[in-house]
Amino acid sequence: MQAEIITIGDEILIGQIVDSNSAFIAKELNKIGVSVYQITSVEDDRDHILQSLHQASERSSLVILTGGLGPTKDDVTKQTLCEFFEDELVRDEGVLQHIENLFAKYISTPISDLNRNQALIPSKATVLHNAYGTAPGLWLKKGETSFVSLPGVPFEMKRLVLDQVLPRVIETYDRPHIIHTTLLTYGLGESAIAERIEEWENNLPYHIKLAYLPNLGRVRLRLTAKGRDKEKLEKEINEKVEQVYPSIKDIYYGIEEDGAIEERVANLLTKKGMTLSTAESFTGGKIAEELTSIPGASAYFKGTVVSYATETKINVLGVPSELIEKHSVVSEEVAISMARNVKNILNTDFAIATTGNAGPSKGDSDEDIGTVFIAISTPECTFAEKFTMGNHRERIVKKSVNKAFELLWKEILKF
Amino acid sequence: MQAEIITIGDEILIGQIVDSNSAFIAKELNKIGVSVYQITSVEDDRDHILQSLHQASERSSLVILTGGLGPTKDDVTKQTLCEFFEDELVRDEGVLQHIENLFAKYISTPISDLNRNQALIPSKATVLHNAYGTAPGLWLKKGETSFVSLPGVPFEMKRLVLDQVLPRVIETYDRPHIIHTTLLTYGLGESAIAERIEEWENNLPYHIKLAYLPNLGRVRLRLTAKGRDKEKLEKEINEKVEQVYPSIKDIYYGIEEDGAIEERVANLLTKKGMTLSTAESFTGGKIAEELTSIPGASAYFKGTVVSYATETKINVLGVPSELIEKHSVVSEEVAISMARNVKNILNTDFAIATTGNAGPSKGDSDEDIGTVFIAISTPECTFAEKFTMGNHRERIVKKSVNKAFELLWKEILKF
Repeated sequence: MQAEIITIGDEILIGQIVDSNSAFIAKELNKIGVSVYQITSVEDDRDHILQSLHQASERSSLVILTGGLGPTKDDVTKQTLCEFFEDELVRDEGVLQHIENLFAKYISTPISDLNRNQALIPSKATVLHNAYGTAPGLWLKKGETSFVSLPGVPFEMKRLVLDQVLPRVIETYDRPHIIHTTLLTYGLGESAIAERIEEWENNLPYHIKLAYLPNLGRVRLRLTAKGRDKEKLEKEINEKVEQVYPSIKDIYYGIEEDGAIEERVANLLTKKGMTLSTAESFTGGKIAEELTSIPGASAYFKGTVVSYATETKINVLGVPSELIEKHSVVSEEVAISMARNVKNILNTDFAIATTGNAGPSKGDSDEDIGTVFIAISTPECTFAEKFTMGNHRERIVKKSVNKAFELLWKEILKF
Repeated sequence: MQAEIITIGDEILIGQIVDSNSAFIAKELNKIGVSVYQITSVEDDRDHILQSLHQASERSSLVILTGGLGPTKDDVTKQTLCEFFEDELVRDEGVLQHIENLFAKYISTPISDLNRNQALIPSKATVLHNAYGTAPGLWLKKGETSFVSLPGVPFEMKRLVLDQVLPRVIETYDRPHIIHTTLLTYGLGESAIAERIEEWENNLPYHIKLAYLPNLGRVRLRLTAKGRDKEKLEKEINEKVEQVYPSIKDIYYGIEEDGAIEERVANLLTKKGMTLSTAESFTGGKIAEELTSIPGASAYFKGTVVSYATETKINVLGVPSELIEKHSVVSEEVAISMARNVKNILNTDFAIATTGNAGPSKGDSDEDIGTVFIAISTPECTFAEKFTMGNHRERIVKKSVNKAFELLWKEILKF
């Protein structure tokens, strides 16, 4: 079976927000064996929504809509659904009670008619209870196709998908299994990899697809298998991975589904009971932020000094000012001093330090824009490596954060 | 005139990546007066791409495609465009030369036939030079509709849009002006705002649209005006903003197009020649990271101590351990001590400090999950406020970072 997603809202079509809702829904549907055939973003406009509903229902047996359920005038999804289903809005007493409770509990302003109107529901719809907001989800059927309408607020949408939509989809549809395994590689372009693995790729069976996903100096190789027998699929994918491994082992660094590199660092440190601190200059706290976005970080992450100014490197991190004068602030020696000192100050087993020039101006150093040093301090040694990361500020920071985690990960494995 | 965007790639439909390309393109088109009618994400599949091309060309006079131009087998956009335009692939010597130059300069592996094949171009296409990659952009025409095909790698796509596509669109099409002004509010729900401004909203002229955009405790009010006379539109929008201001002045904190709150803080500090440091606990460096993502941060931002562990608060920030014992680590007193001390250690005019409990477990404090303290230190005083931010880790951090910038912004205005 296949599904479609329709996201409704002018803010997507004028580029005011990035549509992350549909990526979330697509990923969750995929996990339970539902392929998403198309994602369509349309305006808050009756005619356009109707056209999309018609087209989607001709192609797919499940259509999920997000957005346009708010209480204000610019939102027209509910009225348009009534037209599409030749239905009318009726008051749902359960929803009204829930809205009144939310207002009494959390909202300081008095409840208004606009709020009460959110309890008006197409009479043919099943209500999906939205514990976190005033707009309920709706489940409707026309012929063989189910239509699900969800609020566009990401947090409310996510809870509705996980708690209400997925269980109903599992109950309603017979679905195959879809398994993704994504091999992570670095240091080689997609066409060079394609040549290395050409014979293996040509011999993949029809139900296993390969995709090359290049980004920021890395290529991810995604294998997707689809079929009825989950165990057989997993066995086949594992065999294919083992077959290809010898051809890519020098550029391979893991499997995406095992978690991102920062998660693998986190798991490894937690398992070993070891700790980490960071001293960040041009990465500006990005390494710390990625670490602390993982629940449980307090077990292994003690803290960071973001030493954006040179005087902070001297006064807080204790980097000798002579070292900076002699080698400049963007240098191997300063990176090593930062890593070693933050490890001592924060009393940790490992430390990462970054110093570099992310542009757009040259700052306190003579090094070219894109030149960075990443230092790793371990219980046994401290070293720094130099990298040239291009000339685009955001990319320099992202690539450096990735590289820092890669370097650290390889070191932690030794302990 | 209106445009459509078609993003091609299985990775979007399985939710492996969020489609940020189309938001970028939509925003840039909007700036030059081109409305985007629909965004469609489809698989790397011949039939599906053909269907989307046909449908889009019936509705819109400009169709921009991204993705599917790589050298490997899974990419089929170029061949499919040939079918759609009844065309054939021919070698473009200029593109071939560029690919060979890129390989000679940047890539350590030898050039292969797969790479050379990227110089095969539909004969009817105009080549858009891609300085940063091997897949050129393509511009094709069918009847009154132009089709632009761009690589999916965000960095290459962005440069092509800015340097090549937009100038051609400006030259080719007669376009109206589109102006957005988004009023930022906090502390009141969308329906309560709608009631306050009902009369004003009802009296908006037809060519000015209003949208309510709620998220994370804030509602943004977006006014969009479309027409031929740019000056007249700007005047009208300004009048409308002045008319509505008295009704929302207690919840208003700025205009989005003037920059996000962190950008306004950055501009204000730069203008006043004043400096900032932060001491972050549960926000884990997120405040520092947002500040340093703005070019020129080194002018006012000196650094951060991410004191994730209690011992880091004591050893690096010098928070007295008795204070922590007496009031607990998540307290007004500790927040104030953190802010005051980091301001002194890093020698800045202002400081932000955060301490709180973002969950999922309670950590080193007895406070409930979602309880946070944000402290602001200024040249004249230091104070902390307590907030309850719900129970979702990511939202707690995001809302707190926003709140910290809001509190700081109001203080900087006093100097």
